[in-house]
Amino acid sequence: MKAVVFDNELKLVKDYKKPVPQKGEALVRVTLGGICNTDYEITKGYMGYVGVLGHEAVGVVEEINDDDQSLLGKRVVSEISYGCHDPNCRYCAEKLYRHCPNRHTLGIWKKDGCFAEYFTMPVEVLFEVPENVTDEQAVFVEPLAAACEITEQLHIKPFEKVVVLGDGKLGLITALTLKAQNIDVLLVGKHQNKLDIAKAQGVETILLQDLKVEKIYDVVVEATGSISGFETALALTKPRGTLVLKSTVAASKEFNLAPIVIDEITVLGSRCGQFGPALRLLEGNKVDLKPLISATYNVDDAIEAFEKNKEKDTLKVLLKF
Amino acid sequence: MKAVVFDNELKLVKDYKKPVPQKGEALVRVTLGGICNTDYEITKGYMGYVGVLGHEAVGVVEEINDDDQSLLGKRVVSEISYGCHDPNCRYCAEKLYRHCPNRHTLGIWKKDGCFAEYFTMPVEVLFEVPENVTDEQAVFVEPLAAACEITEQLHIKPFEKVVVLGDGKLGLITALTLKAQNIDVLLVGKHQNKLDIAKAQGVETILLQDLKVEKIYDVVVEATGSISGFETALALTKPRGTLVLKSTVAASKEFNLAPIVIDEITVLGSRCGQFGPALRLLEGNKVDLKPLISATYNVDDAIEAFEKNKEKDTLKVLLKF
Repeated sequence: MKAVVFDNELKLVKDYKKPVPQKGEALVRVTLGGICNTDYEITKGYMGYVGVLGHEAVGVVEEINDDDQSLLGKRVVSEISYGCHDPNCRYCAEKLYRHCPNRHTLGIWKKDGCFAEYFTMPVEVLFEVPENVTDEQAVFVEPLAAACEITEQLHIKPFEKVVVLGDGKLGLITALTLKAQNIDVLLVGKHQNKLDIAKAQGVETILLQDLKVEKIYDVVVEATGSISGFETALALTKPRGTLVLKSTVAASKEFNLAPIVIDEITVLGSRCGQFGPALRLLEGNKVDLKPLISATYNVDDAIEAFEKNKEKDTLKVLLKF
Repeated sequence: MKAVVFDNELKLVKDYKKPVPQKGEALVRVTLGGICNTDYEITKGYMGYVGVLGHEAVGVVEEINDDDQSLLGKRVVSEISYGCHDPNCRYCAEKLYRHCPNRHTLGIWKKDGCFAEYFTMPVEVLFEVPENVTDEQAVFVEPLAAACEITEQLHIKPFEKVVVLGDGKLGLITALTLKAQNIDVLLVGKHQNKLDIAKAQGVETILLQDLKVEKIYDVVVEATGSISGFETALALTKPRGTLVLKSTVAASKEFNLAPIVIDEITVLGSRCGQFGPALRLLEGNKVDLKPLISATYNVDDAIEAFEKNKEKDTLKVLLKF
């Protein structure tokens, strides 16, 4: 089968071995995949991963190695991690597979990904896509779930003021998701054209240069991925407020954590999320993610698609199988 | 009156003007003061503060400019901040004076401190010292309250594992305070003689070199003040655990916040606390802080006392008035 593989270099392999579903697993035929910045990071060495790339996809279940065949023939999306299920693993006991120390993660850690004609994952982490949700929307379920994770971790009260910093994919999806939960959110970015995508769906937006930087926000979501973004986030968070760290930031200059102590700020790391709430948002047409699609490539042009993903103005690049 | 003043240099002034209590304030005659590292930082320029130093003291109320004279003649300690009391200030409404944007802070910000024969503070932030608590214990109430702040901010469940990093004053007082609240705490440090102070009061201790660094702790308190301490704290905090940042850390090398996101860690800045719970710990003999006293100087030798405070093995240095 065709597969997009990273093995010290990014390549399209035409005769990759089709995977065989293990006990409890389903074989999924991929129809559409989405390139994430993590995929790009992996091609630069992140996680030391080697294998089929990809962890965002929609597909159809073609085979199930399990008694329960209820998902056979269904259109599905897959959560990206599955756990060890050791009876002593408290993360697995809580279905927090993404924190299981012995987890496997689709296209990221110890498990071939979904940028291939077929992939396998345990049935228990597959979710049927509601009929009214198109592939083009469903392919966003993983980043959408990551945005939903914020309100799984944090109780945002209806009167609280929330600001999201960053108008890339992460910032846009986060702002749309919070807005869809009736939260008072302001999206801040540097690109009017990107801000306009959220604005068209009712999100209040402002250019960074026009924002008055003062410590008045109850919750600030850092989604820029830059150290200056983190510092701006700190300068916007009010005493005893919460700074949600969504993007992975490596500090590249000296950097003072004292404001966190002085203002007793909570910095909350936030990563992946559950697919259920994300699919409900899509099913109810609460968010429209199609405007984030910058380009769609056939899998045969996957290398070109990865090049497109690197371009400054690109949001989401899809791969069609 | 005699006063220890910082005014570009540290000096003992013999004829400093005795303060006059404003409406709502009490005049307190100081008997014993405690030098804090913040005092030392101020002498290096921290906060740009100029005036009488000191925010840890015990004294006796000699005069009250208010109808309520109930504290007259009583032995008291003073919380360090008071607020603006503007009806629109939500921090003052919650008595969170330490976060009031227009606050005054004893010996730190816009208010002469307590390293003088007399100081004034609003009656509402003064607390009577219980009879059975000596001056030598009561003088620790401010850092003890800062340690109590952790459980004001964070619900630590009885089955959770807590580790405190750092065997300086802050780490020792924090470990003793958590232990006094029946929390399962382990104190980690580099100095056996300092660890032994906590060990003598039932705290489990271990030298850093003997600690197995693994992500198994629900709550990690960083009290070393160093960036390497912060990194060790991150390496000890389990996924979805909490890292309590007690000391102000300025990063001096490149530094990666990604683990906070990947492991969804909560970094909780924690500063000052309420005096009530701290005084209850002292009144009930739940902590003994006297072993932390390294030396006591007469105010006339205040400059020497500050020198002593700088020495590596020194814990608390007191000033007698």
